[in-house]
Amino acid sequence: MRFISETSFDGVREQLFTLGEIPGVLWTPEDSVGTRPLVLMGHGGGQHKQAPGILARARRFVTECGFAVVAVDVPAHGDRPKVEEYDRIATENQARVEAGEELAQLMADFQALVARRTVPEWREVLDAVQQLDHVGAGPVGYWGVSLGCGLGIPFVAAEPRVRAAVLGLGGVLGQAEAAARITVPVEFLVQWDDERVPRDQSLSLFDALASTEKTLHANPGKHGEIPGFELESTLRFFARHLG
Amino acid sequence: MRFISETSFDGVREQLFTLGEIPGVLWTPEDSVGTRPLVLMGHGGGQHKQAPGILARARRFVTECGFAVVAVDVPAHGDRPKVEEYDRIATENQARVEAGEELAQLMADFQALVARRTVPEWREVLDAVQQLDHVGAGPVGYWGVSLGCGLGIPFVAAEPRVRAAVLGLGGVLGQAEAAARITVPVEFLVQWDDERVPRDQSLSLFDALASTEKTLHANPGKHGEIPGFELESTLRFFARHLG
Repeated sequence: MRFISETSFDGVREQLFTLGEIPGVLWTPEDSVGTRPLVLMGHGGGQHKQAPGILARARRFVTECGFAVVAVDVPAHGDRPKVEEYDRIATENQARVEAGEELAQLMADFQALVARRTVPEWREVLDAVQQLDHVGAGPVGYWGVSLGCGLGIPFVAAEPRVRAAVLGLGGVLGQAEAAARITVPVEFLVQWDDERVPRDQSLSLFDALASTEKTLHANPGKHGEIPGFELESTLRFFARHLG
Repeated sequence: MRFISETSFDGVREQLFTLGEIPGVLWTPEDSVGTRPLVLMGHGGGQHKQAPGILARARRFVTECGFAVVAVDVPAHGDRPKVEEYDRIATENQARVEAGEELAQLMADFQALVARRTVPEWREVLDAVQQLDHVGAGPVGYWGVSLGCGLGIPFVAAEPRVRAAVLGLGGVLGQAEAAARITVPVEFLVQWDDERVPRDQSLSLFDALASTEKTLHANPGKHGEIPGFELESTLRFFARHLG
């Protein structure tokens, strides 16, 4: 793990790092020492580790809960190079959709392919970050919607350190088996008028989670329009389960 | 409006009253004066104005938000006499179900009949309670699930003083038209394994609400098993919209 830069702003220390070829960012309370809960955040498709939605939430997790938060770029996103295989598949998929195949299934297959790479990467990130004095081996949470849900479901299913997860804006296609292995508390966000994820696919993914404590929050609006008050709920959810 | 008794416990003043033939209870912060938000609570079927679920929530609304809370017995519930017409209908319905008619539709028709009485009663209760010095004409909220949702939907639709409502454990049958007239913020509770309200009926009732701000919270468990953390969410919802 190599640190590239460290800056502080408004009570939050931000450290950019690379772990092997993975570029990441770690946020912690300024001048903090000692073990604390850690939230790993998975960004959305086409976004990156410091996208506004990630940054805004990370700041709140740090300042209001005293957590550490880590986010890394998904392959072919942010500061990472293109992946030739992904480009080839994207081109093939375009042709297959034009030939009448269903986009949703192709997208699900593609996410599963990416997850085979991100799940071990994210576990390595946890290993490295939890070695740091100002993070330590405390309880871990996961936050990710949209692509962050598609990659988050297999990650949470595979990683026993994760004690609670906020997921959502994702459908059941290709996810049922992993979802059935998730038993930690989940807060699951649904946008009632999601133009990208059919409502019944969302509800079925919630249904597939094996967690005894899981709570679905549905709000009107499109895929990108999660209302601001859900962040308040997320903060309390993580505070309850990691704090 | 005639006050019958007044007691105080742990910061909450409880006043029993009758308004005409309606028995009611008003909770306010002990020694409070001046106008404050008021929450009207509708109890569940077979319950009454001081049922444990009502009482526990009312106390929290008073102690944590400084609200006034009022609840009255629904006709044929609590301290109110039997209603011959309701008994007759119940007996008829029993026979009709045995003859193959659908219970859900009969129940919906029955709730609509009761609502024709409770809607004007509850509006009278608001009129009377808002005259009191320690309540006043502040913003009004409504809380009611199960029967309290069945009667609450037409009440909230009819009463412009209500600025926010917590509803749930109810289906769309017979409620779509009133729900479509509700435009205030709603927090809507669904029990994912509700043995009394089919899931799609619940989701359709949420869907039918015309409110631009509405949020559905679904949790695993049966009809009566709303998890405790939903009360925290309800408190914040009312604080946000009435506070």
